[in-house]
Amino acid sequence: MDFEYDAKTVEMIGKLEAFMDEVVYPAEPLAHEQMQAAIKEDSWSPPAVLEDLKAEAKKRGLWNFFLPGDDGAGLTNLQYAPLAEITGRSIQLAPAAVNCAAPDTGNMEVLHMFGTPDQKKKWLEPLLAGEIRSAFAMTEPKVASSDATNIETSIVKDGDDYVINGHKWWITGAMNPNAKIFIVMGKTDTSAERHRQQSMILVERDTPGFDIKRGMHVFGYNDRDHGGHAEIEFHDVRVPASNLIGAEGEGFAIAQARLGPGRIHHCMRSLGIAERAVEMMCQRASERVAFGKPIADQGVVRDWIAESRVKIEQLRLLVLKTAWLMDKAGNRGAHTEIQAIKIATPETVGWILDKAIQVHGAGGLSQDFPLAEWFAGMRTLRFADGPDEVHKNSLARAELKKHR
Amino acid sequence: MDFEYDAKTVEMIGKLEAFMDEVVYPAEPLAHEQMQAAIKEDSWSPPAVLEDLKAEAKKRGLWNFFLPGDDGAGLTNLQYAPLAEITGRSIQLAPAAVNCAAPDTGNMEVLHMFGTPDQKKKWLEPLLAGEIRSAFAMTEPKVASSDATNIETSIVKDGDDYVINGHKWWITGAMNPNAKIFIVMGKTDTSAERHRQQSMILVERDTPGFDIKRGMHVFGYNDRDHGGHAEIEFHDVRVPASNLIGAEGEGFAIAQARLGPGRIHHCMRSLGIAERAVEMMCQRASERVAFGKPIADQGVVRDWIAESRVKIEQLRLLVLKTAWLMDKAGNRGAHTEIQAIKIATPETVGWILDKAIQVHGAGGLSQDFPLAEWFAGMRTLRFADGPDEVHKNSLARAELKKHR
Amino acid sequence: MDFEYDAKTVEMIGKLEAFMDEVVYPAEPLAHEQMQAAIKEDSWSPPAVLEDLKAEAKKRGLWNFFLPGDDGAGLTNLQYAPLAEITGRSIQLAPAAVNCAAPDTGNMEVLHMFGTPDQKKKWLEPLLAGEIRSAFAMTEPKVASSDATNIETSIVKDGDDYVINGHKWWITGAMNPNAKIFIVMGKTDTSAERHRQQSMILVERDTPGFDIKRGMHVFGYNDRDHGGHAEIEFHDVRVPASNLIGAEGEGFAIAQARLGPGRIHHCMRSLGIAERAVEMMCQRASERVAFGKPIADQGVVRDWIAESRVKIEQLRLLVLKTAWLMDKAGNRGAHTEIQAIKIATPETVGWILDKAIQVHGAGGLSQDFPLAEWFAGMRTLRFADGPDEVHKNSLARAELKKHR
Amino acid sequence: MDFEYDAKTVEMIGKLEAFMDEVVYPAEPLAHEQMQAAIKEDSWSPPAVLEDLKAEAKKRGLWNFFLPGDDGAGLTNLQYAPLAEITGRSIQLAPAAVNCAAPDTGNMEVLHMFGTPDQKKKWLEPLLAGEIRSAFAMTEPKVASSDATNIETSIVKDGDDYVINGHKWWITGAMNPNAKIFIVMGKTDTSAERHRQQSMILVERDTPGFDIKRGMHVFGYNDRDHGGHAEIEFHDVRVPASNLIGAEGEGFAIAQARLGPGRIHHCMRSLGIAERAVEMMCQRASERVAFGKPIADQGVVRDWIAESRVKIEQLRLLVLKTAWLMDKAGNRGAHTEIQAIKIATPETVGWILDKAIQVHGAGGLSQDFPLAEWFAGMRTLRFADGPDEVHKNSLARAELKKHR
Repeated sequence: MDFEYDAKTVEMIGKLEAFMDEVVYPAEPLAHEQMQAAIKEDSWSPPAVLEDLKAEAKKRGLWNFFLPGDDGAGLTNLQYAPLAEITGRSIQLAPAAVNCAAPDTGNMEVLHMFGTPDQKKKWLEPLLAGEIRSAFAMTEPKVASSDATNIETSIVKDGDDYVINGHKWWITGAMNPNAKIFIVMGKTDTSAERHRQQSMILVERDTPGFDIKRGMHVFGYNDRDHGGHAEIEFHDVRVPASNLIGAEGEGFAIAQARLGPGRIHHCMRSLGIAERAVEMMCQRASERVAFGKPIADQGVVRDWIAESRVKIEQLRLLVLKTAWLMDKAGNRGAHTEIQAIKIATPETVGWILDKAIQVHGAGGLSQDFPLAEWFAGMRTLRFADGPDEVHKNSLARAELKKHR
Repeated sequence: MDFEYDAKTVEMIGKLEAFMDEVVYPAEPLAHEQMQAAIKEDSWSPPAVLEDLKAEAKKRGLWNFFLPGDDGAGLTNLQYAPLAEITGRSIQLAPAAVNCAAPDTGNMEVLHMFGTPDQKKKWLEPLLAGEIRSAFAMTEPKVASSDATNIETSIVKDGDDYVINGHKWWITGAMNPNAKIFIVMGKTDTSAERHRQQSMILVERDTPGFDIKRGMHVFGYNDRDHGGHAEIEFHDVRVPASNLIGAEGEGFAIAQARLGPGRIHHCMRSLGIAERAVEMMCQRASERVAFGKPIADQGVVRDWIAESRVKIEQLRLLVLKTAWLMDKAGNRGAHTEIQAIKIATPETVGWILDKAIQVHGAGGLSQDFPLAEWFAGMRTLRFADGPDEVHKNSLARAELKKHR
Repeated sequence: MDFEYDAKTVEMIGKLEAFMDEVVYPAEPLAHEQMQAAIKEDSWSPPAVLEDLKAEAKKRGLWNFFLPGDDGAGLTNLQYAPLAEITGRSIQLAPAAVNCAAPDTGNMEVLHMFGTPDQKKKWLEPLLAGEIRSAFAMTEPKVASSDATNIETSIVKDGDDYVINGHKWWITGAMNPNAKIFIVMGKTDTSAERHRQQSMILVERDTPGFDIKRGMHVFGYNDRDHGGHAEIEFHDVRVPASNLIGAEGEGFAIAQARLGPGRIHHCMRSLGIAERAVEMMCQRASERVAFGKPIADQGVVRDWIAESRVKIEQLRLLVLKTAWLMDKAGNRGAHTEIQAIKIATPETVGWILDKAIQVHGAGGLSQDFPLAEWFAGMRTLRFADGPDEVHKNSLARAELKKHR
Repeated sequence: MDFEYDAKTVEMIGKLEAFMDEVVYPAEPLAHEQMQAAIKEDSWSPPAVLEDLKAEAKKRGLWNFFLPGDDGAGLTNLQYAPLAEITGRSIQLAPAAVNCAAPDTGNMEVLHMFGTPDQKKKWLEPLLAGEIRSAFAMTEPKVASSDATNIETSIVKDGDDYVINGHKWWITGAMNPNAKIFIVMGKTDTSAERHRQQSMILVERDTPGFDIKRGMHVFGYNDRDHGGHAEIEFHDVRVPASNLIGAEGEGFAIAQARLGPGRIHHCMRSLGIAERAVEMMCQRASERVAFGKPIADQGVVRDWIAESRVKIEQLRLLVLKTAWLMDKAGNRGAHTEIQAIKIATPETVGWILDKAIQVHGAGGLSQDFPLAEWFAGMRTLRFADGPDEVHKNSLARAELKKHR
């Protein structure tokens, strides 16, 4: 047992921190300004400055960390974890700057693992190059999406095509006009066994019948900087049969394969948010004076700071161990640990953000600090990829089995 | 001791509930639509339908409940409490519909108690008639406003005028172009005793040098339906000396007088939010099916519903007792109780809203349900009129004194 | 609505507080000493000083508050509530001193409502006179007693007798040799409808086959001062048929009638414990110095004190309202409220005791202060008369029904 | 970074688990019986069966794990951690069985590091052999012991002797008649610099003037199995000057050196308690039926089980990392981490025990299960070696410094 990062990780951390200090943090004010303008203009493109960051990141060799093997940066999950955390510190910019932003990472993984050579050439390559963005269309408004077997979208074979009808929402990234390709989950055979009814299929943005209705709000945010969350209707959307990913009936299995890494990536980045929130809380508490002394001298504020540190240290270690286990035993072998961090992260980081907001006074809720927006994002993680309650139930069932 | 409402209250509850059922709830979808349009147009006026509601409310004699005595509806605080709770159930519309919305209620109280006949004629009368709106400018960006003695805005006598310079933010309602009159808190004498330095003065919206910079966001919301929260700069704003409220040095005392009722009104209305959230939680849980049974059959969801009921019942009684005590012993006599409900309400109602959101799935965070917006509003109450920590500290000091 | 106690209540409070100040509190050290000696001698009698207190209480007319009507003190539940709270402040002595201790109060109520004239003469009269004690034998070790239909003890008619076989535990008060009479719940007809199988029967302590095995511990305590909690076996225990309370099959209904008041009495007394814990916490915090200042100046300690006050005020009002509702609408009409206080009280008071202990340092856990013993007692309330989870589930079901 | 135990650790875990399965768990019922008898006889010796366990442990080479280097088992802190956890699963027996019980471990460390050859021969050797026990006398009743500079016991040089006067309590293990040697902390020079006033000195049990007054209770427990917690008075206790440990004025520094390992050992063992509680909770929930289904099928119980697992996994990793850091950077280098686990452990494990108790019904509070006794022990950890509040304050100060 050893708690020290390996040499490769230490080297990459150094490079990434330099990039953050020299390039990303300095760009934050401009990006914030561009996004405030985007709100006024109702534009859904990411901040223009992002392209500069991407160019610089590529130049520095900070790109596609998330993808193991030769097509990516050649890192293990364990090596990627601290890097993802660092990008989380500037969550609106850094993950996209190094081409490691959700939902594209998961989509690239799916194409990498299950795509045909043609599919890879057409969509994986420009995604890996950071030229286009993508989305993943699974959640539906009319059913409890915590239970994936509820899905109602139909994918029907018709000659050499598939025809898609359905209604999706919370399709993250889809409002961004540069999100060119969508992975859509639907049912090809409602008479098959429960977990063999679903298939995944690729749909291009400009396909007739593909109708983006609106962006969903999260609290009052549109999440424009990462392409919002779209409500989409599919009216007889026709795509070539070659757009199917894998075979018919493999949709559920592919979704499961996709979710493991997606969940841990969220957790890794969230640690970065938590660390930055603690930093901000400490700085504000030291500067701000009330009733004759800095807020940092108040016992209750110190209690929050200490609890934050204690919580973060525990959470990070479990995220790292999970990454290590995924490297060693595969996503399935780390199933329980992935659930555990999925449950623990939003609660822990949300708690810290709430305290950081309180230390900032009303300003902490406003556009002058990123804390409230981070809180909103963290709150969504209690639903994303399944609500806490579903994961807890499943984790408890496994625990109960161990002791029977 | 008797826990039954008196006949007058029962009668008013009946009338108000009829108004809610027949007029307010049916208007909610249209108001929501108008506000979504206002976001697009960047308009800061309240939804147009509100004027219809106000006319109807006046016709039904449902008006100015908050103001005791002949100028208002002649109700005690205890009689007003359940009415305020009912208006809280449609918080974006109902309080304004019956002319009982913050911050106007507090401003009208100030003018009613401390205004000169001229001030009353010019500003109180149109406020009581619901013709104009108002704002209260106290909080400043550069200092911890939890400590009112920190205020830096200056009010300097110059001949027959006062000249005001300063910087305020979180001035609720001020973005509404119909907010015609502002009560501004500043210092007239920085050499006086700590609590005698402050004065309050009336400033009209169109006074030269009165510069509204922007609306503050709360979790991404602008709170347009109640006029937003403005950042305002005062550059040599000159008003007649007759605009002073009370005498020089009385600002702190007037502020204190204003805060008691303001705080309890927030708590009363918040109970209505909590009740409606429980209703929505129960309905959604009954309708939504996951893994083969309604969510309402899940033990964890039932735990939330039961806890919500247990918490609300306790909180409401403390709010009612506080109202009763204010009627009996005055605002000062109910000081501890006002602090207690100020501390308990946002935590309790925020907790309930969080659970109601979770039962609604991701939709609960979106513009399709009011829950997230209510959560945001409730979160601000942990700062409004002083952060929790200040009230707890003060309440504990009083408790410690009792046992020495 | 009125939050003031009536004249009768105010008068009784005055008398009872005088009794506490003049008689009970001064007797506490001696009682503690006698109980520490009882531990050494393994004696199960209450402290000898209790008889003096009872004599004095009777003389002062402070007796049988709990029993409405002419046979008791003629008080309503609402009038009794603040008196019960006051006795809770010295929970080991005061309730028994005024003959209002559990489980006798519930047993006297049962005999009062359902007893035959003979049963009343033989057992109710000496109980009302404070000459003997009693116990209530329902809980069984082999089944989840939260579900009363699980009960396995059999009560079989045999000629003019009933013969009882079964196994009970947690029979509070039963170790006290002066607990002369037991109300035993068992099944007379296992083929009847689920809630008509149970009956209640009176068993005298010295009946052959009635075998007290041992006293159950609660966090290491024996609870000797209120007669411990016995494990009892019934081996062919034969009693006259006239010992049956009510008719066969009425046991469940009688148990329900008994539980309502029993639950609220526990809650009332628990408020007294909470108030005394806050007093002790404040006093200790003011006296004890660490790192150069009184603990009372630490922000975290103030937070605990403030939260304690805020919680108690809310809880007390709900207990009082419940008492009022029982007076007005009967125990069944106050069913939801009784559940609510049953859920809220142990959690709230347990929280306060935990903080009071923390302020006292390790001493707070020891025999030098009553806090840890009170905590243990409060913890049992999360099981007594049904665990929290059962009540929450039932309360949620009722709430869900309201909104369908 | 690597989360796998090394080969030595895996081997030792195997041996220790075999010892637990074959020897310790089977001895638990007898030990429990012996301790229940000890309560009746007011005996303070550990259960007789312990000596058999010790003999067997020695034979198996499972001895003195805690002591690094050749005098102990030659393990690192990181290697010891999982072993300590395993002993924690049978906390009343196993740590003492392998001679790794508090407070002896800390005392042996002190003698090992700071003892003279004579002191080592006389007291360290029999301690390492498990022939005698020891105690550590620091806490005093009259002052807040969270602040070590408060200590009032005096150690005065008089010729070739030191004379000790003072009053201690909570001296763990001291009631055991086999606790032959005491390390006593007092002040040799009240005029010296704050942290140079204290010294440590060795006092034998049978020294005149050494007066053991009583055993302190924890809740209702005496903690007889590990020698209770004594209140002790020192009246002119005279010991040879050669009994001083280190030099005059080094007491505070030695105490600090002693506390680091002591704290982490408590945390390691507590993990074992937590694991066993989860096991018991799962087993009970699976066996017990209420309202027609096993308690394990209740959503709320599953929530507790899942949360327990999530909490334990995080806590264990932080304990392991702290052990690793102590090996690598020394106790001082792991200062923050030691504080973090000291804060997190009692809260986390106490929470789990509370839930395990609730699943067990009232039996969970009784002598029939060890859960309530474990809860009591865990509650003391929030005071032992300094209350949570002191550690949080210190940890927050360090965090604040990082961000200034």
